[in-house]
Amino acid sequence: MSGFADTRARFHLPEGVIYLDGNSLGPLPRAATERMARVMQDEWGEMLITGWNKAGWMAQPGRIGDRIGRLIGAEPGHVMVGDTLSVKVYQALAAALELRPDRRVILSDSGNFPSDLYMAEGLIRTLGQGYELRVVAPEKVAEALSEEVAVLMLTEVDYRTARQHDMAALTAQAQELGALTVWDLAHSAGAVEVDLAGAGADFAVGCTYKYLNGGPGAPAFIYVAPEHAAKASPALSGWLGHEAPFDFDPTYRPAPDIARMRVGTPPVLGMAALEAALDVWDMVDMREVAAASRKLSTAFIEGVEAACPALRLASPRRATERGSHVSFHFAHGYAAMQACIAEGVIGDFRAPDIMRFGITPLYLDEDDIERAVEIIARVVNDRLWDRPDYATRAAVT
Amino acid sequence: MSGFADTRARFHLPEGVIYLDGNSLGPLPRAATERMARVMQDEWGEMLITGWNKAGWMAQPGRIGDRIGRLIGAEPGHVMVGDTLSVKVYQALAAALELRPDRRVILSDSGNFPSDLYMAEGLIRTLGQGYELRVVAPEKVAEALSEEVAVLMLTEVDYRTARQHDMAALTAQAQELGALTVWDLAHSAGAVEVDLAGAGADFAVGCTYKYLNGGPGAPAFIYVAPEHAAKASPALSGWLGHEAPFDFDPTYRPAPDIARMRVGTPPVLGMAALEAALDVWDMVDMREVAAASRKLSTAFIEGVEAACPALRLASPRRATERGSHVSFHFAHGYAAMQACIAEGVIGDFRAPDIMRFGITPLYLDEDDIERAVEIIARVVNDRLWDRPDYATRAAVT
Repeated sequence: MSGFADTRARFHLPEGVIYLDGNSLGPLPRAATERMARVMQDEWGEMLITGWNKAGWMAQPGRIGDRIGRLIGAEPGHVMVGDTLSVKVYQALAAALELRPDRRVILSDSGNFPSDLYMAEGLIRTLGQGYELRVVAPEKVAEALSEEVAVLMLTEVDYRTARQHDMAALTAQAQELGALTVWDLAHSAGAVEVDLAGAGADFAVGCTYKYLNGGPGAPAFIYVAPEHAAKASPALSGWLGHEAPFDFDPTYRPAPDIARMRVGTPPVLGMAALEAALDVWDMVDMREVAAASRKLSTAFIEGVEAACPALRLASPRRATERGSHVSFHFAHGYAAMQACIAEGVIGDFRAPDIMRFGITPLYLDEDDIERAVEIIARVVNDRLWDRPDYATRAAVT
Repeated sequence: MSGFADTRARFHLPEGVIYLDGNSLGPLPRAATERMARVMQDEWGEMLITGWNKAGWMAQPGRIGDRIGRLIGAEPGHVMVGDTLSVKVYQALAAALELRPDRRVILSDSGNFPSDLYMAEGLIRTLGQGYELRVVAPEKVAEALSEEVAVLMLTEVDYRTARQHDMAALTAQAQELGALTVWDLAHSAGAVEVDLAGAGADFAVGCTYKYLNGGPGAPAFIYVAPEHAAKASPALSGWLGHEAPFDFDPTYRPAPDIARMRVGTPPVLGMAALEAALDVWDMVDMREVAAASRKLSTAFIEGVEAACPALRLASPRRATERGSHVSFHFAHGYAAMQACIAEGVIGDFRAPDIMRFGITPLYLDEDDIERAVEIIARVVNDRLWDRPDYATRAAVT
């Protein structure tokens, strides 16, 4: 994996830790600390209010949007950064529903992240008028598509199992039936190759604190396809989405483009860390990252399966059918994960029995994978969580 | 103003600048730089994903909410921090409307900040069902209140003129007629004495980057009165507002309290700066700050009026009827403000002809006010904006 030695050097990783949770919160890019100090002192401290123009804070959400757009196959000028992923789900879904006024069904699957389903529930409650959220099993989505469906809303890569939907095929099928698509890229952006323009996706949303390493609570992004950009109603029609925010017009007139998806004042400090994180992404090609991820993930699966017969693979075995994390079922999963963390391998646990490990080539190599497998095997095979000193150690993580 | 020498020392203010724009973006609290470096390196860098519990990131929005609550007269446990002010307006308004299902009118005034009106327009578009946003002149609000009104939505202190509504009287009148109130405290929190509990306000929202000095794009806050806290529907029903977010329940069940107004993953980095800014507020009593503001503002008005006959006061003359900024009408206002900035007095301009100056006792004293008046007088009386070198200097601010 020497191809990524350059990017690995750009991250701060704590001594003695193998970090397999970059699918939940990416590690600190070294440059982000320095960039943040600069934005605090030289921009906020010295420029004060003039930073909005002088330091480019006002233009930042679109500028960063385009840098993310390159990683997900979006056309330039069609990605905007801001708010949280849940808020962006609401905007995309509301806009999509309004574009299909004669239909009432939102189709999703039970592998979707709960917040996406919750936001849909909240939107339906506000909309009234007989809207329905229909949730089917992931493998039943294709057959559940029909001319009743207004919007197909899916998370491309399942947050538990890493099972990846076929975005191009489902988008084509949905559109043939007259439905629109909203794709959540939370576990896709920076993880797998995404080609929004190629797939003809209508809307997409995602977060930046996982694979993109933007920092805890880093802002989200939204994509609106060119054909909808000038028509999509933002629902959350805030002043920065106005055609001319500083006219202080009493009536809302949406910006003619993706800027209409802006809502309130952007989080400048969080944006600064994200911008530094994207400098690392500028060094790589997403195809190479995805190929490296598949190689490392395959080695990880083979290693764990060979060393830990008690663990059962929860992710698809074929690398092309999964995202960039790997999950295993294990009845003692929670306790075992706590023990792994105490032993220096950080992954996470998802109920009821899933041990989840993120594979992130920007800062992990084959040696890390090999060492992680050894530690996991020791934890599982020696039942380390039963050791008397364990409870104390787990409590502090 | 020696009473505030201690707080003044806690801010970084650029050399040679008198900053009268803290009503738009507060200056950098010195401690925020160090706190941010710590959150970057020691928390994100070293704790990684475990920071959510170990560093208390998950509990931060409520903890900070209570510290803001003290400054606005809220009951403990009834303020939550997150998102942007526009998003919080949407939540408060949607919740209030749902509590008055038999009414269809949102009453507001033309002095409200445009984004609040835009968010109401967006919500109405989503709701359909004959809702109406009725906007009257600020002085006509009392007589426009009726039993048709579901929600009275006002910004307490006008962003242009600083005219302050009588929150207690309007809230009482609205409630007598069966309406609920949503108060926007953007220009009130940290500026004037606010007593939400005493006034019996139903909902309130505000931002933290102005008087509270939380930094550019710092998160907003929302207040829900105790009697509504367990009933108010959050509209934006995100996973962190769920009763048990980490159960990953497929169905939304709102938290029993103010936590239901949380939406997505909180902006940890922005929260860190805000938390450091609130340390300064812990040193003072809001009554003393408001009294000092009135004293400085009165001196400022008297000084400007005596020295610049061409400027006409746009703010109420009585200190008890205005917030903590002061505005003047001036036909050459835009050019004059650019010249003031070039000369070291930073205020701002609001169309069509308003020069706006924020008065913030935490870091401004009588000497600053006196020097500012001198500079403004020189700019206005000598028509400095006509000087040939001016255009160049103004262009860089």
